[in-house]
Amino acid sequence: MPEEKPHDVIIIVAGPAGLTAAIYTGRALLPVLVIEKAVPGGQLNETDLIENWPGFEEAVAAPELMEKLRRQAARFGAEIVQDEVIRIEPGEGLHRVVTPHGLHTARTVILAPGSRPRELPAKGAARLKGRGVSYCATCDGFFFQGKRIIEVGAGDSGLTEALFLTRFAESVKIVIRHPEDDPKAFRASPILQKRARENPKISFLWNRIVEEVLGEDRVTGVILRNLATGETETLEIDGVFVNIGHVPQTDFLKGAVNLDDDGYIVTDKRLRTSIPGIFAAGDARIDANRYAQGVIAAGEGAIAAIEAEKYLSG
Amino acid sequence: MPEEKPHDVIIIVAGPAGLTAAIYTGRALLPVLVIEKAVPGGQLNETDLIENWPGFEEAVAAPELMEKLRRQAARFGAEIVQDEVIRIEPGEGLHRVVTPHGLHTARTVILAPGSRPRELPAKGAARLKGRGVSYCATCDGFFFQGKRIIEVGAGDSGLTEALFLTRFAESVKIVIRHPEDDPKAFRASPILQKRARENPKISFLWNRIVEEVLGEDRVTGVILRNLATGETETLEIDGVFVNIGHVPQTDFLKGAVNLDDDGYIVTDKRLRTSIPGIFAAGDARIDANRYAQGVIAAGEGAIAAIEAEKYLSG
Repeated sequence: MPEEKPHDVIIIVAGPAGLTAAIYTGRALLPVLVIEKAVPGGQLNETDLIENWPGFEEAVAAPELMEKLRRQAARFGAEIVQDEVIRIEPGEGLHRVVTPHGLHTARTVILAPGSRPRELPAKGAARLKGRGVSYCATCDGFFFQGKRIIEVGAGDSGLTEALFLTRFAESVKIVIRHPEDDPKAFRASPILQKRARENPKISFLWNRIVEEVLGEDRVTGVILRNLATGETETLEIDGVFVNIGHVPQTDFLKGAVNLDDDGYIVTDKRLRTSIPGIFAAGDARIDANRYAQGVIAAGEGAIAAIEAEKYLSG
Repeated sequence: MPEEKPHDVIIIVAGPAGLTAAIYTGRALLPVLVIEKAVPGGQLNETDLIENWPGFEEAVAAPELMEKLRRQAARFGAEIVQDEVIRIEPGEGLHRVVTPHGLHTARTVILAPGSRPRELPAKGAARLKGRGVSYCATCDGFFFQGKRIIEVGAGDSGLTEALFLTRFAESVKIVIRHPEDDPKAFRASPILQKRARENPKISFLWNRIVEEVLGEDRVTGVILRNLATGETETLEIDGVFVNIGHVPQTDFLKGAVNLDDDGYIVTDKRLRTSIPGIFAAGDARIDANRYAQGVIAAGEGAIAAIEAEKYLSG
């Protein structure tokens, strides 16, 4: 690839944060290149229906919403290319964005690579994702009113999620791989453990892992393996919520900008990273990951774009 | 009014932040009361077309977008009433929300009263708002490509806005009430003054105020008064951008939660105010006002709702 002219703005990954940033930079008449390794939309594409994106009274399919954002960004001049950024090389005034196909340079970079939930390592889990297997209770809990749920994950966020799901579900069974008397059984704080134990809708399945998620079009049950006895059992349930951690997609940023110990991008309130001219927005950013919500990422995309424009005018 | 049962959540003002909070609390099956003194939509209603709300490829009229948010919140059970909150009385566990018509109580309160731009005190300015008179360059600059603009406001944000508008406009004339050699002429930092003076599209109209904005359906010109000579002159222009400050709508909160010196609500990153159980989101909040963008306020509404739910479950 011949070396291109430097860009004003390069946005890395076309999720809700990146595409909103592209809409804002585009409307500021800044030429912007968006680099997305798969299809625009990010993690949102893997959910089914979205009911909480403000402005859509009825549920909207995630890929449809993301296609709208993509077209909106394109309308204001954003160029979206499919490629994978493998490295950023910050520079004085001009940053290098390296892909397997070549090199881009830009005066500002907006990092919006997102994060991914750690997947449940069980047969059928990937196939039934968005059809009973969920990685987001805030997003999907509402769809499980009166249903029977299992929750995988016994850390603080797993128990918080299980307690939240009792608002909707008939029952929430928490699957825990350790025996009840094992100090490793919970990683959650004692107060959350107490609340979960006291909640009449919550029960615990000790010593067990999910071996398989069952169902054709929708989850109908799970096969659990008892690690103490080696035996399996089948449980009829309607939903599997998984909360075993998130992985920010920031490997390509190591050594380029400050990341925290878990790999999240560190910024200030104005979404400035440790490198002048490089901004970050969305779920890979240190504070946003607590929520992992599209509209929150989108709001951050707008902030990053406004700050990038101010930086360029400065 | 007979005293009602305590609410789980009361949201004060149905703008983008408040209505998004209502969508999120509603989907968490929390009964929520939204109190709005006028019509839902907040400051956004006073703009004309919105092109940067992510998900709307084509421009959408502000009242139409806000009506969609209102219906979406109502779909998830939000009750929206027209009333004006005159006082909040924080309590231990239960907060009192006082209106001229009575008293509501709630375990959590989400404050989203917004802020308003200080209006240009000139004849015709109110009538032509959204039709050539704008209080938001980020929102409306794009509509003024190749146009002639005047900017009112010589503080940091006024000059930043004028510089931003040179991306679009043919010319930007900055109207300043003081003479050029008056130290009070600019409140902006020297670096911004220098940049504005060096920009070939920017010129200055010293000693002048806008006395009247002219135009039938759209702005066609302004009448300026020269404060040194007393004379008036008519200038043909297409747009008037006003940046003479914002006023957070927080008078009713004085003494109830911590406000900063300008009246903005102080919160932490999780949008918790100084009072446990009371949260704040949107343009009346200390950091959001820097941007005054609907989608940023909406993202904050989602955060406040998630945090309120966690607080109630705690």
